[in-house]
Amino acid sequence: MAHRLHLDDLNLSPGKKTRLHRLLYRSGPANGTLMILPIDQGLEHGPRDFFDAPESQDPNFQFRIALEGRFSAIACQIGLAEKYYPSYAGQVPLILKLNGKTEIPADESPLSPVIASVEDAVRLGADAVGYTLYVGSVRQDEDFQQFRRIREDADRYGMPVVVWSYPRGSAIEARGGKDTIYAVDYAARVAQELGADVIKLNVPKLEPEKLIRAPKAYQRQWTQESALQEVIRSAGRALVIFAGGERSAGGTALEKAEACMKAGAAGLIFGRNVWQRSLSEALSMAQSIREMLDRYAV
Amino acid sequence: MAHRLHLDDLNLSPGKKTRLHRLLYRSGPANGTLMILPIDQGLEHGPRDFFDAPESQDPNFQFRIALEGRFSAIACQIGLAEKYYPSYAGQVPLILKLNGKTEIPADESPLSPVIASVEDAVRLGADAVGYTLYVGSVRQDEDFQQFRRIREDADRYGMPVVVWSYPRGSAIEARGGKDTIYAVDYAARVAQELGADVIKLNVPKLEPEKLIRAPKAYQRQWTQESALQEVIRSAGRALVIFAGGERSAGGTALEKAEACMKAGAAGLIFGRNVWQRSLSEALSMAQSIREMLDRYAV
Amino acid sequence: MAHRLHLDDLNLSPGKKTRLHRLLYRSGPANGTLMILPIDQGLEHGPRDFFDAPESQDPNFQFRIALEGRFSAIACQIGLAEKYYPSYAGQVPLILKLNGKTEIPADESPLSPVIASVEDAVRLGADAVGYTLYVGSVRQDEDFQQFRRIREDADRYGMPVVVWSYPRGSAIEARGGKDTIYAVDYAARVAQELGADVIKLNVPKLEPEKLIRAPKAYQRQWTQESALQEVIRSAGRALVIFAGGERSAGGTALEKAEACMKAGAAGLIFGRNVWQRSLSEALSMAQSIREMLDRYAV
Amino acid sequence: MAHRLHLDDLNLSPGKKTRLHRLLYRSGPANGTLMILPIDQGLEHGPRDFFDAPESQDPNFQFRIALEGRFSAIACQIGLAEKYYPSYAGQVPLILKLNGKTEIPADESPLSPVIASVEDAVRLGADAVGYTLYVGSVRQDEDFQQFRRIREDADRYGMPVVVWSYPRGSAIEARGGKDTIYAVDYAARVAQELGADVIKLNVPKLEPEKLIRAPKAYQRQWTQESALQEVIRSAGRALVIFAGGERSAGGTALEKAEACMKAGAAGLIFGRNVWQRSLSEALSMAQSIREMLDRYAV
Amino acid sequence: MAHRLHLDDLNLSPGKKTRLHRLLYRSGPANGTLMILPIDQGLEHGPRDFFDAPESQDPNFQFRIALEGRFSAIACQIGLAEKYYPSYAGQVPLILKLNGKTEIPADESPLSPVIASVEDAVRLGADAVGYTLYVGSVRQDEDFQQFRRIREDADRYGMPVVVWSYPRGSAIEARGGKDTIYAVDYAARVAQELGADVIKLNVPKLEPEKLIRAPKAYQRQWTQESALQEVIRSAGRALVIFAGGERSAGGTALEKAEACMKAGAAGLIFGRNVWQRSLSEALSMAQSIREMLDRYAV
Repeated sequence: MAHRLHLDDLNLSPGKKTRLHRLLYRSGPANGTLMILPIDQGLEHGPRDFFDAPESQDPNFQFRIALEGRFSAIACQIGLAEKYYPSYAGQVPLILKLNGKTEIPADESPLSPVIASVEDAVRLGADAVGYTLYVGSVRQDEDFQQFRRIREDADRYGMPVVVWSYPRGSAIEARGGKDTIYAVDYAARVAQELGADVIKLNVPKLEPEKLIRAPKAYQRQWTQESALQEVIRSAGRALVIFAGGERSAGGTALEKAEACMKAGAAGLIFGRNVWQRSLSEALSMAQSIREMLDRYAV
Repeated sequence: MAHRLHLDDLNLSPGKKTRLHRLLYRSGPANGTLMILPIDQGLEHGPRDFFDAPESQDPNFQFRIALEGRFSAIACQIGLAEKYYPSYAGQVPLILKLNGKTEIPADESPLSPVIASVEDAVRLGADAVGYTLYVGSVRQDEDFQQFRRIREDADRYGMPVVVWSYPRGSAIEARGGKDTIYAVDYAARVAQELGADVIKLNVPKLEPEKLIRAPKAYQRQWTQESALQEVIRSAGRALVIFAGGERSAGGTALEKAEACMKAGAAGLIFGRNVWQRSLSEALSMAQSIREMLDRYAV
Repeated sequence: MAHRLHLDDLNLSPGKKTRLHRLLYRSGPANGTLMILPIDQGLEHGPRDFFDAPESQDPNFQFRIALEGRFSAIACQIGLAEKYYPSYAGQVPLILKLNGKTEIPADESPLSPVIASVEDAVRLGADAVGYTLYVGSVRQDEDFQQFRRIREDADRYGMPVVVWSYPRGSAIEARGGKDTIYAVDYAARVAQELGADVIKLNVPKLEPEKLIRAPKAYQRQWTQESALQEVIRSAGRALVIFAGGERSAGGTALEKAEACMKAGAAGLIFGRNVWQRSLSEALSMAQSIREMLDRYAV
Repeated sequence: MAHRLHLDDLNLSPGKKTRLHRLLYRSGPANGTLMILPIDQGLEHGPRDFFDAPESQDPNFQFRIALEGRFSAIACQIGLAEKYYPSYAGQVPLILKLNGKTEIPADESPLSPVIASVEDAVRLGADAVGYTLYVGSVRQDEDFQQFRRIREDADRYGMPVVVWSYPRGSAIEARGGKDTIYAVDYAARVAQELGADVIKLNVPKLEPEKLIRAPKAYQRQWTQESALQEVIRSAGRALVIFAGGERSAGGTALEKAEACMKAGAAGLIFGRNVWQRSLSEALSMAQSIREMLDRYAV
Repeated sequence: MAHRLHLDDLNLSPGKKTRLHRLLYRSGPANGTLMILPIDQGLEHGPRDFFDAPESQDPNFQFRIALEGRFSAIACQIGLAEKYYPSYAGQVPLILKLNGKTEIPADESPLSPVIASVEDAVRLGADAVGYTLYVGSVRQDEDFQQFRRIREDADRYGMPVVVWSYPRGSAIEARGGKDTIYAVDYAARVAQELGADVIKLNVPKLEPEKLIRAPKAYQRQWTQESALQEVIRSAGRALVIFAGGERSAGGTALEKAEACMKAGAAGLIFGRNVWQRSLSEALSMAQSIREMLDRYAV
């Protein structure tokens, strides 16, 4: 099995270490792995994500799943954090997402504007902040500068930074799109270079017909395993968590997730694949994930 | 009847709760519902809105209606607040609108610039601030960042934030326009995600020929009732108030308004439909609204 | 005769009232009306405005006219204020213009950049600040935000704000141009909404062939009198002063000015029509204006 | 001979007067005139300006000329000021240029970005700061705002401001170009209006075929003398210095320079025309200038 | 042999001198020359640069080379500095790169956004900061302003500034491209003018067919030696270090490097040409460089 980073490998400041320790060893699997429940889709995709599972439209539903499903943390925007988190404060760790956008305007040059601050996270008792970085966007200069201010504040307050590192924009499309190993690999490295502590990546897809438009160095045979290991290496001393993606059959999702863990991932972030179910199904899914993660303690 | 939010459900800070309590229980219907009189049309549409009711050109007219018609609050821009509100201070609560624009330049990528601050609102003794958010505009990144600074100041001073959440811009037009259930629903959620305490929405229109351009999830049968309930749910723990819209026959307007209350709205915001009338007609209209709202006490 | 606002009607802070009182009752006609001498054309139009009256190229000429012609105040930019006003300090009140631009670049989306601060005005002993607002410009969002900072500083220091409210830009042209009653009327209201204490307007022109492109509500018969009264009403509790415009025969200019006063204006701002003359002619013109204003004491 | 401004005419603050007094009466000709050596061409034009006089590539060469040629001051950017000025501190006054750019990108909408601050100038012991203003550029709004911050800091620290006032950009080209009396005249006035203490102008060229595109008021017979007097008058109470321009025969350059002084200029700024020579030739040129300036003491 | 600058020639502040002295005399060759190991390619080019030397994907590999190969310093971005440098603190000096970008979006108007601060460098114990300047880019005004803030902070904290001075953008392409003597020469001067203490340049290429598009002054016969001497002179009192470039045969690279030193360079910056090798080869390459540099002690 691949090498897996330990918290002690990260050279973190005391504040970051304290908070990340809580996420890794005091909640969720509590074995050094991460299991995050995100509920930022209401902003990113709109209410349509909730239509097939009506209960999920009420944010309290996700907070309840996070608590009863024993997730390491719930990740959401400031609006939900202010209105729903107070009832769960101290019981479920919070990752405050600091930027976000809707899917409405065209996405050729995406930038996710900052709508909350590290200070908001401190004030609310959050254990980490989240930031969505659009690697390769024409507006990456604004993105980098915007991220810099978050990173600096996070350093000042000892707050771990989770980067949703997404290759995006027309230049990425021209090189094969956001799901190639090339795109995800570069995104992982960029997040590392800019100072992420935890990096959320999407699982690269093996589509040779797309990869052919990527730089020459990537023109080789990739397996799911080698691709996962590659992007995890590109994240360096940042913990990598992989997305569960859209709702799919529980078994398939778990297999994919375990492949990530085997390749060295630090954990998983499962949103729609968990909360687009009834409460009991969601909790059962959570339990399956937790049991799987128990085999990857660090 | 639909569930209606109570002030205690909102997890507000003491400052926000104090001020919102004044709006809900110490003025207007004083029964937990809201009845707001806005006079921001002079900036948004220009003086033309006053031509059919000449008295209405004098802002003092609206302040007088707010007082004598026992509205929960009057909402206006800084210029009117500074020149007219002093004579009504303590008698009519003030919601200070913080941004606004004219209708003159083209509206494909709208952004409503901030022209007053939360500090102005505190200084003037206002009980809430208002912000117009153009959900889906190409400039939504600027809008979100601008709103963030308002939201942070409002958190700092304990000032409730009322968001006029308007789907707008060319991308919204391409998906069926600003009045579809899709557009209003997304706008409601966005305002919730960004941290609104009260959300002003327009009543969605049931126009199947437009809705067809919206995302697939919305391709279903909607009734006025189900549409209203949907957008209220999308607002989460923010109070929803609906617009009375342009002047229309009093009976029709009240019926529409009552449908909103039945669906779970927290209140109404009636501008032109009230003050584009003579004083006596306006006060009579106000009384009808109040009597109706008395049936929806929380 | 139309109602005329009194200083006490404006609900001003003590600082603003003190300074505006000086302009209204301690200098110029000293009867509650205003008679302003602007010398900002050197920046706005360039030296060409001085060619027909060579003495006028020396800013000292205008300061001398302001003093000897007993104007309520002189209005100029920071450069002239710093170099010429010191010799007149205490003798002629100063209105410091805070923004300005040249006429050289194309004017489709005008914005007048800020080149001095309210603090400069305080430091120099000015009694008001001036700001040029281009209502309807594509860049009105920047303009509003820029004005907001001036308005806030003016509130902080108790400094009256005079807004030169000019409809401008391609969208205004498309609706009939900057001189229609529609355009001037909207500009008056916008200045009021944004917090002006005094509003400088141009006299609307009655050109039906242009007005036809304005919104429907304006499609009615206007007289000079009804048009002036309309725009003055749209200014609400801000004092309105009208421009004397380009140099014209003294009699004509005075007649036009008196029509403004009759309609309820608070005063006049005469620049080129005064200082594009010899000193003796300019002083004689000033005396005529003053005598006329004496008939409109408030 | 034309009237020449005296330091006492300028209404300067004590700090500005102290520093400008040093430039006018304690260094260079020390008779109330200015003789400035600029070395900002390495940034503006690149090293190519040094190719015909290889010694000039070493900035120390210009500092030596400034000292041994007894110039009133040397003007340069922060990089040279930090590395070369220390060896000359106290011996040659420094004018720190605060903005600059390369000639590489297209110049249709020029803006010269700020690369040093008034505080840098104070820290280095400079006696004035320099700023290049591109009058008429489409980006003049940014330029004015940028200059405003410099002007305010200069007021705060009592630091004289020298404005290189250059008409530039496509709108200027459309009106006959940067060298017409129209363009230079407007540039002079703008610098005055914005608050310059000293204005550097280029000598207007008498090219009727270009002037024909300028505003009507300028369509008259100009002589070199009347043109120079006009632009000097447009500078008001700011001292005007004229550029020596590119290297030319010493005699011609001096004649042109003396015409400027006769017209009322306060001094000269000679760069390439001095340092694109051998040291001995440069010093001899400097001596000729000084001797000429001695005839224009103020 | 060409003249070589000594630390004492640079007129540095005590803080800058202290830190640069450590780089020149307490680490690396410790003879007044510089030998820098950069690892910023992971951000600039993406992980593809590591594919031919898999060990190099782990930043620890470069830190180890820097230490065991006795480099003067390692240069990297904030992410690597925070996670890897702590283990080497005190043993290998750090140059913190403050800006960077990916190669993904089009490069016609490049700007490298700032992602870390001089304060970060101070906090981490770095001995210099690095900044990439794109000379000639259409966005050079933003670049200059961005650099200014770095330069000012560096002056405040006594932190030496290393400028990666790169001619770039469409206007540079139109003049023959980024590698002509013209382009590199101008870049060297610009970095000097803006306040660099150390300037990293690429070795100019002698391609007459490209140079023909450069300004006339550059149309002469250049040798590698005269070209190198020219650009070093254009750097003035800033130390010049040359890039080793892409991996090439060790001998060739060393010859090229020695030519730079002979021409007066202060040192070398070797990245891929060192770390795209096995550890032993890399260390052997480092030793060869060091031995060569020993012949150029200052």
